[in-house]
Amino acid sequence: MKEITVGIDIGGTNTKFGLVNREGNVLHQGNIKTTAYAEFLEFFNAMANALRETIKLLPADHKIVGIGVGAANGNYYTGNIEHATNLRWKGILPLAKMFTDEFHVPCILTNDANAAAVGEMIYGNAQKMKDFIVITLGTGLGSGFVCGGVLLNGHHGIAGEVGHTSVNPNGRYCNCGKRGCLETYVSATGIKRTVYKLLADHLEPSELRGVSFDDLNTKMITEAAHRGDLVAKEAFEYTGRILGMKLAETAVHTDPEAIFLFGGLSLAGDLIFKPTIRHMEANLMPLFRGKIKILPSALQNQAAPILGASSLVWNHFEKQKLEMA
Amino acid sequence: MKEITVGIDIGGTNTKFGLVNREGNVLHQGNIKTTAYAEFLEFFNAMANALRETIKLLPADHKIVGIGVGAANGNYYTGNIEHATNLRWKGILPLAKMFTDEFHVPCILTNDANAAAVGEMIYGNAQKMKDFIVITLGTGLGSGFVCGGVLLNGHHGIAGEVGHTSVNPNGRYCNCGKRGCLETYVSATGIKRTVYKLLADHLEPSELRGVSFDDLNTKMITEAAHRGDLVAKEAFEYTGRILGMKLAETAVHTDPEAIFLFGGLSLAGDLIFKPTIRHMEANLMPLFRGKIKILPSALQNQAAPILGASSLVWNHFEKQKLEMA
Repeated sequence: MKEITVGIDIGGTNTKFGLVNREGNVLHQGNIKTTAYAEFLEFFNAMANALRETIKLLPADHKIVGIGVGAANGNYYTGNIEHATNLRWKGILPLAKMFTDEFHVPCILTNDANAAAVGEMIYGNAQKMKDFIVITLGTGLGSGFVCGGVLLNGHHGIAGEVGHTSVNPNGRYCNCGKRGCLETYVSATGIKRTVYKLLADHLEPSELRGVSFDDLNTKMITEAAHRGDLVAKEAFEYTGRILGMKLAETAVHTDPEAIFLFGGLSLAGDLIFKPTIRHMEANLMPLFRGKIKILPSALQNQAAPILGASSLVWNHFEKQKLEMA
Repeated sequence: MKEITVGIDIGGTNTKFGLVNREGNVLHQGNIKTTAYAEFLEFFNAMANALRETIKLLPADHKIVGIGVGAANGNYYTGNIEHATNLRWKGILPLAKMFTDEFHVPCILTNDANAAAVGEMIYGNAQKMKDFIVITLGTGLGSGFVCGGVLLNGHHGIAGEVGHTSVNPNGRYCNCGKRGCLETYVSATGIKRTVYKLLADHLEPSELRGVSFDDLNTKMITEAAHRGDLVAKEAFEYTGRILGMKLAETAVHTDPEAIFLFGGLSLAGDLIFKPTIRHMEANLMPLFRGKIKILPSALQNQAAPILGASSLVWNHFEKQKLEMA
């Protein structure tokens, strides 16, 4: 029997899922609209149906051994989605138990950044590492820590909220209710805010002066920077400076071998990596300098969230084997 | 046979050692002057002799099962003291191997803050906790992280340098070579610097105006604050504000159940705990508020560094048992 895992990524708008083998190949995938269901139970039934149909496409000698789910506010310990701010269903949703009851296999739930970290360890650039951090740069900034080969969950299951460390207590307003959080500067949204700040403060001409805030995105800023647009280039420099300064603080907490950057902003390559590395090194305690690698994630394609989620299952079984050995 | 561990704390000035049972009672203790030996080998031989003499005092049915050592720049992985800045012997000192060769028992080395964290877990207030942090407030600020019941060492064996996260990049000069590190504000030395800054900036009368920087210590500042001295009270408020702000950042990294304060400054009680808790809560991401306890360490007496070091041995054996179970 060939073992296959399911990876499900529950986003605020879409829920993507896929069937994944141990090598990280997505054999089949699909998606449903998260927002189309008024009740959580309706959503779950639609998801379970879609999954059953997709599983039927597998050859007879393939079997599903587990389901991994990445979701904002997914709690690894309880298997519940707890008070998610990006979903319309409120309160505590016992997702893992429902999947296990329905499909009779283990279901592992965690938040999307933790899933990305486990994905990097199982399929990606951290396969031989025991101590590393993944920083996900999307709408916000998420982070997942692996320490001694184990995903760090914390006492309440909410470890790794580096996006809400402080850059400036009187700085930009954050969705979390605070001001000046790292993710208001370093994320797809953060760099847009920086571009608008630069356009407001400076007289420099820029092709971005013709783009509305709603239309502006990381890809446009990256392309403008490549064409030599000074505002776009400065926006990356500023973003990398703040990320580097804060990674210098994160690094001295857990002493990782590497920090991986994942998601849209990280695809800008040198534009973001160079200032990040330079400012991290400059701000690091001397004992740590030259020791910590800043690397791109290996999971950069569309299927990355599915891979991350599916990796939770392999990780679960490999941990079990280790404990029994 | 009753099992006994040795705890050794190598400080810049004195090296203290003791024989400790599993309950955390120090049966015998002694010390030698760290600074009295020009060569490391002379120091080691003197230490080994003193230890042999002390072990002779034990009843015949007691046996030494291991040696734990806490030392600045002690590396858990290699068992070496590496480039310590507080010792006169330079380079790499293979301490653990030398003790094992001499006494034929395991020797576990780590830095003093990590030893304090393990001590809290083995003998202290964290005996039932799996996720906690110990902050040691001495000449500097050290920190030890326990995550999932395991001491966090990091990839290079240097995790937990929270004392060198940044309060202000243009702030006070730090021994590490940077400026504005947390320990330049929050430590026995840090609060002295704050008192002097307040005396410089304000006209307020204060009993501390009669004390030189060299003579000033935490106990004096504490007593002055208890007598209502405004400068001393403000110094604690300022110290607690900065500690609270930075613990709010540390907490979102590893999501601990509790953060323990250890050492001289923490003995000031409410003077330091109240502002620390207030400012941590105010600066925490809302998801974490009301969840993380700030508590005094249970190991506050003179023997604490010996206990911390000796606890490394019990922790070593208990981890082994767990792995074999």
